[in-house]
Amino acid sequence: MSNGGGGGGASSSTHLLDLLEEPIPGVGTYDDFHTIDWVREKCKDRERHRKINSKKKESAWEFTKSLYDAWSGWLVVTLTGLASAADWLNDLKEGVCLSAMWFNHEQCCWDSNETTFAERDKCPQWKTWAELILGQAEVSSYIMNYFMFTFWALSFAFLAVSLVKVFAPYACGSGIPEIKTILSGFIIRGYLGKWTLMIKTITLVLAVASGLSLGKEGPLVHVACCCGNIFSYLFPKYSKNEAKKREVLSAASAAGVSVAFGAPIGGVLFSLEEVSYYFPLKTLWRSFFAALVAAFVLRSINPFGNSRLVLFYVEYHTPWYLFELFPFILLGVFGGLWGSTRFGKYPVLEVITVAAITAIVAFPNPYTRQNTSELIKELFTDCGPLESSQLCQYRSQMNGSQAYPAGSDAAATPGVYSAMWQLSLALIFKIIMTIFTFGLKVPSGLFIPSMAIGAIAGRIVGIAVEQLAYYHHDWFLFREWCEVGADCITPGLYAMVGAAACLGGVTRMTVSLVVIVFELTGGLEYIVPLMAAVMTSKWVGDAFGREGIYEAHIRLNGYPFLDAKEEFTHTTLAREVMRPRRNDLPLAVLTQDDMTLAELQNIISQTSCNGFPVIVSKESQRLVGFALRRDITIAIENARRKQEGIMLNSRVYFTQHAPTLPADSPRPLKLRSILDMSPFTVTDHTPMEIVVDIFRKLGLRQCLVTHNGRLLGIITKKDILRHMAQMANQDPESIMFN
Amino acid sequence: MSNGGGGGGASSSTHLLDLLEEPIPGVGTYDDFHTIDWVREKCKDRERHRKINSKKKESAWEFTKSLYDAWSGWLVVTLTGLASAADWLNDLKEGVCLSAMWFNHEQCCWDSNETTFAERDKCPQWKTWAELILGQAEVSSYIMNYFMFTFWALSFAFLAVSLVKVFAPYACGSGIPEIKTILSGFIIRGYLGKWTLMIKTITLVLAVASGLSLGKEGPLVHVACCCGNIFSYLFPKYSKNEAKKREVLSAASAAGVSVAFGAPIGGVLFSLEEVSYYFPLKTLWRSFFAALVAAFVLRSINPFGNSRLVLFYVEYHTPWYLFELFPFILLGVFGGLWGSTRFGKYPVLEVITVAAITAIVAFPNPYTRQNTSELIKELFTDCGPLESSQLCQYRSQMNGSQAYPAGSDAAATPGVYSAMWQLSLALIFKIIMTIFTFGLKVPSGLFIPSMAIGAIAGRIVGIAVEQLAYYHHDWFLFREWCEVGADCITPGLYAMVGAAACLGGVTRMTVSLVVIVFELTGGLEYIVPLMAAVMTSKWVGDAFGREGIYEAHIRLNGYPFLDAKEEFTHTTLAREVMRPRRNDLPLAVLTQDDMTLAELQNIISQTSCNGFPVIVSKESQRLVGFALRRDITIAIENARRKQEGIMLNSRVYFTQHAPTLPADSPRPLKLRSILDMSPFTVTDHTPMEIVVDIFRKLGLRQCLVTHNGRLLGIITKKDILRHMAQMANQDPESIMFN
Repeated sequence: MSNGGGGGGASSSTHLLDLLEEPIPGVGTYDDFHTIDWVREKCKDRERHRKINSKKKESAWEFTKSLYDAWSGWLVVTLTGLASAADWLNDLKEGVCLSAMWFNHEQCCWDSNETTFAERDKCPQWKTWAELILGQAEVSSYIMNYFMFTFWALSFAFLAVSLVKVFAPYACGSGIPEIKTILSGFIIRGYLGKWTLMIKTITLVLAVASGLSLGKEGPLVHVACCCGNIFSYLFPKYSKNEAKKREVLSAASAAGVSVAFGAPIGGVLFSLEEVSYYFPLKTLWRSFFAALVAAFVLRSINPFGNSRLVLFYVEYHTPWYLFELFPFILLGVFGGLWGSTRFGKYPVLEVITVAAITAIVAFPNPYTRQNTSELIKELFTDCGPLESSQLCQYRSQMNGSQAYPAGSDAAATPGVYSAMWQLSLALIFKIIMTIFTFGLKVPSGLFIPSMAIGAIAGRIVGIAVEQLAYYHHDWFLFREWCEVGADCITPGLYAMVGAAACLGGVTRMTVSLVVIVFELTGGLEYIVPLMAAVMTSKWVGDAFGREGIYEAHIRLNGYPFLDAKEEFTHTTLAREVMRPRRNDLPLAVLTQDDMTLAELQNIISQTSCNGFPVIVSKESQRLVGFALRRDITIAIENARRKQEGIMLNSRVYFTQHAPTLPADSPRPLKLRSILDMSPFTVTDHTPMEIVVDIFRKLGLRQCLVTHNGRLLGIITKKDILRHMAQMANQDPESIMFN
Repeated sequence: MSNGGGGGGASSSTHLLDLLEEPIPGVGTYDDFHTIDWVREKCKDRERHRKINSKKKESAWEFTKSLYDAWSGWLVVTLTGLASAADWLNDLKEGVCLSAMWFNHEQCCWDSNETTFAERDKCPQWKTWAELILGQAEVSSYIMNYFMFTFWALSFAFLAVSLVKVFAPYACGSGIPEIKTILSGFIIRGYLGKWTLMIKTITLVLAVASGLSLGKEGPLVHVACCCGNIFSYLFPKYSKNEAKKREVLSAASAAGVSVAFGAPIGGVLFSLEEVSYYFPLKTLWRSFFAALVAAFVLRSINPFGNSRLVLFYVEYHTPWYLFELFPFILLGVFGGLWGSTRFGKYPVLEVITVAAITAIVAFPNPYTRQNTSELIKELFTDCGPLESSQLCQYRSQMNGSQAYPAGSDAAATPGVYSAMWQLSLALIFKIIMTIFTFGLKVPSGLFIPSMAIGAIAGRIVGIAVEQLAYYHHDWFLFREWCEVGADCITPGLYAMVGAAACLGGVTRMTVSLVVIVFELTGGLEYIVPLMAAVMTSKWVGDAFGREGIYEAHIRLNGYPFLDAKEEFTHTTLAREVMRPRRNDLPLAVLTQDDMTLAELQNIISQTSCNGFPVIVSKESQRLVGFALRRDITIAIENARRKQEGIMLNSRVYFTQHAPTLPADSPRPLKLRSILDMSPFTVTDHTPMEIVVDIFRKLGLRQCLVTHNGRLLGIITKKDILRHMAQMANQDPESIMFN
């Protein structure tokens, strides 16, 4: 047995009944790696709210305090939004503007004289860190460049992994599985602390700069949650209540996605669909506000428009045709297969090895050498007259005719074919490296690498379909809508659909993903192809892998996460899951008024469970309430310190009035204030599907089982998770925490 | 006391224990105007699912059936989406295209020779019904037109109200309050039936055509829900399960908004935030799909783009400035005040009277005579060179200079001032007429009239600020950003913000409203002004009126709706709310094995409660389970019909095995199969805030109250609602249904 936790209401009913007793410090807090009790936390918050509200008419000061309390929710999400947006400033840290240090890449290059689109990003004032050091030496030979590329990659990777190892081990990975677990009501101290924030921000820049196949979007969500957590300490309403704190964290994760993708609505839906557990409407509104603040600040920082808020802005000239749904669904299947890849199954390799291999293999191929975001942008972009990319070297362009848009001669040149080869190699490389990179002990996200893989696959398919349509334009499939010389296929759209499919396969997001891609690209027209691909990839992924990457990692780490999406479909009854099992020792229970302190301490020391039911008497087995081990221990220590005459043979009682005792007995110890008098109970006949539903929706830690009014046993969250693992033929011992 | 309903699991536990007993027909259904039991419905569905799944390997036919079952969810939302989109065809019914009957207004006029924007809508081929009849007579005098306008308005209004009264009284109003109540788990038979669908569709067109100040957006949601409900009858999975049916209805309401506004994402958020009660992630995805199907079909019907999918597409040339937040917030205050207007407080006037007054007063003013949607479109639109509206007669235009966009001389001409006067009169008229129109017995929505009122107010404020900035451009507020001769204020943006504020005040929507307006206008840039206004209007509305229009109507009608948004903040305990109260008769209970049929029937006939707790014995008061009145009655009738030897002195027992009876006693009656052996219980010390939470989250009908394992009383949903009404100083008797 495990897991204590008052079923709820302990504190509020206590205060009604024992107004004279002071609350014992420490009662109602949680240990590290334990599950919180949502009902109790929410009761605590309502009580705090009532106290402030009842006082507010007493004085101007109390009124100000109540106003501050009412507004602190908005304040904390505003601060979180602002801070999350500031994280984006780490774009600055990719390099430096020689003319004005505080300018970011785009602002730096805006004033430069290079005005063509392609050259704008390469203005001489902007230097990446590597360029800055290399640039002085005017290294021009390929071999030297190759060597320096690898050298810098290794240095950055080494620095990143050392910083993580020494200062903040929690800073590695994407952090989203842990955030999901924390939001579902689990305590991991320090996971969202200031050290994690600092080290993750720094090492994220290093890891990205080292050229490893990882993205910074997932870690940005973690960083935003750290900001939310830290700001929540400014407001007692949030710092002292684990349930309220999680409302801030939900909003922070929305702000994180808003910053990462410039997608405020997508961020809110991501938080709702993927990350959050308890998401009341108030949080929806606050998350939206936080996401908007973040997006607005981003916009203000970077007022020149085209780079952020719509990260990969696309504008296609041709609509899509119904027939094209077939290749789109194929891309969805590819995405689903990618999503059922088991990341992290492989032993954790040395970061340096992976970084070295990445650098060595990546350099010769322009598509792997390049920054991943820029690669995605290039793949998404439709071929226009100004497009100098190798992917756009069609015959019409080679002829020098500027008659675009028309695609009047969409035949590919050898340039396109060599680009296709390089893309295929890049695809294989990216797939292999991403599988090995995810799981390294550095901050790493899967969003951008997955999108890149999907975009490459999509562009390849797109060009293939385009050439097919060009050379077989009289085939029945193309005849109707693809006239000779017309530009009827947009390979960039295929890249977009492929990217969405791969991202969907990995994360199993649905609505939020479509909205994110739509906000990312501005392509409201293409929502149907996107949906078709995302749905296919989800179904294929579910069929092969059963669970998304986050759920898989939660399970690997043994966190107690009761997934709201997974349905419990078995016919077990509560009595089959409850402890004690048939041949176990009987349940450790306390009686309400006939135990001595020695007996109580004996029970506590001989058992390991986190809480004990309190019953009227051993004979009747009628349930009175539930007391937590942690609370009992604290209360006994507190009584020993403050009350005189407490001895080992003192009577312990949970009733309102002390039992009648012999005249010479020592002073009894009243423990009613820590008794939860409203524990949740179910009958032994209750189907487990209902019990699981109650645990999920109310956020319980444990539930007592009765039969005809008599106490029979207890079911904890851990028991449920173990039972579910057993039913799915998994090892029940993989659930490690309470 | 009231409300029976197994706490859940009755059927599934029953089947485990009594495999040989056949289910009794009728057990587990609900009466009209009763609350459903979500837990039991979900259990029933899981059991059905398990049955189909276990059979699917038996034969190809069973496998097909299981596939059909798995896909029926997608099928039903697709059908609903398609049907909802088809509702939009009632745009057709506003008139007829003389050249091709099946063309809608825009398609009809597309081929016409009038190519200027303003003239396109007025092509000679398109005739509204009124024009068609009037047009033949070539009436040209103002008086004659005036008379005919009024005559047609009265005829349409009379026809609409008669049809509603005779055929489908449920077709009146917007229907959203009732849909909210139904989705929260209430049965109103016929509210979503085929008659309501037909009559509402027809009378909606008539009501809109009669020129009454009402919109068709709300009723379109009702119509979409009717479609969803009717299609759900094709699939036993949905027709036989009230909880599953509500998933379809949630998706249908999303499709309805998607059709009404061309806003698929806004529709999903509307369904989530405003309408739905139980909204699992699966429903999110399905709702999104339904909304998209609807939007996609709309798009296909009307391929010429500019009218639908972005209903009021706007394109402004100037950004907004921080100072402008002040007038935007003022508009928010106006919206909040509008939202706290008490619609429907006035006696229900005769439709004809209102229609006559509307027509007589509306005709002289061009802004009230015009179609409301077109008015909103005009108010939202920025003044461009092609704009012929009186609102755009600035001096720059009067000079005949085509140097737009520049607004180089934004001084208003007398034309604008007279337009302002007309707008002010229109505002007053619209406010008064909308207040009296809402509540008439015709289909009527508040969305479009509210938006129109807000847009008028916004445009007036916008023009005022514009002229202020023009004449005081050196004032410190304008100096920095408003150069002489520059176009720095966009009155159309003010209209948009005002419309959002008024809609927000009435409905108290937040995120969904911002997203709808953003999808409606395409103005992602203006999301911050929109949010500021919507938030202000919500706060002002909450401060004055406490509740939105839908909640107010639900309360007026006495529906049992437990609002998830409203927090329960009192400190009452369960024992203070439960029945029996202190001086009441004791709770009617059944004992598990020592009652005769006569005693049982006696208890049933003497009480009016919907269910009875079953206890071990009167002495111990230990709870065994809960049995519903409806189920007991059906089971007794069934036994009398099918089993011989059941007499009035037959022993009734709920236990597994029959009690030992004297040798000459008649055959006993076993009622275990209708006993819910897992009723929900709470202790008498449980704070009501927790009880309310449990009821909301699990969708309970009733909950039993125990003390130390003994049964004390019962709390039903109605008891909770009455208690809440009492705490809010309202009449508890206003809650009428169970």
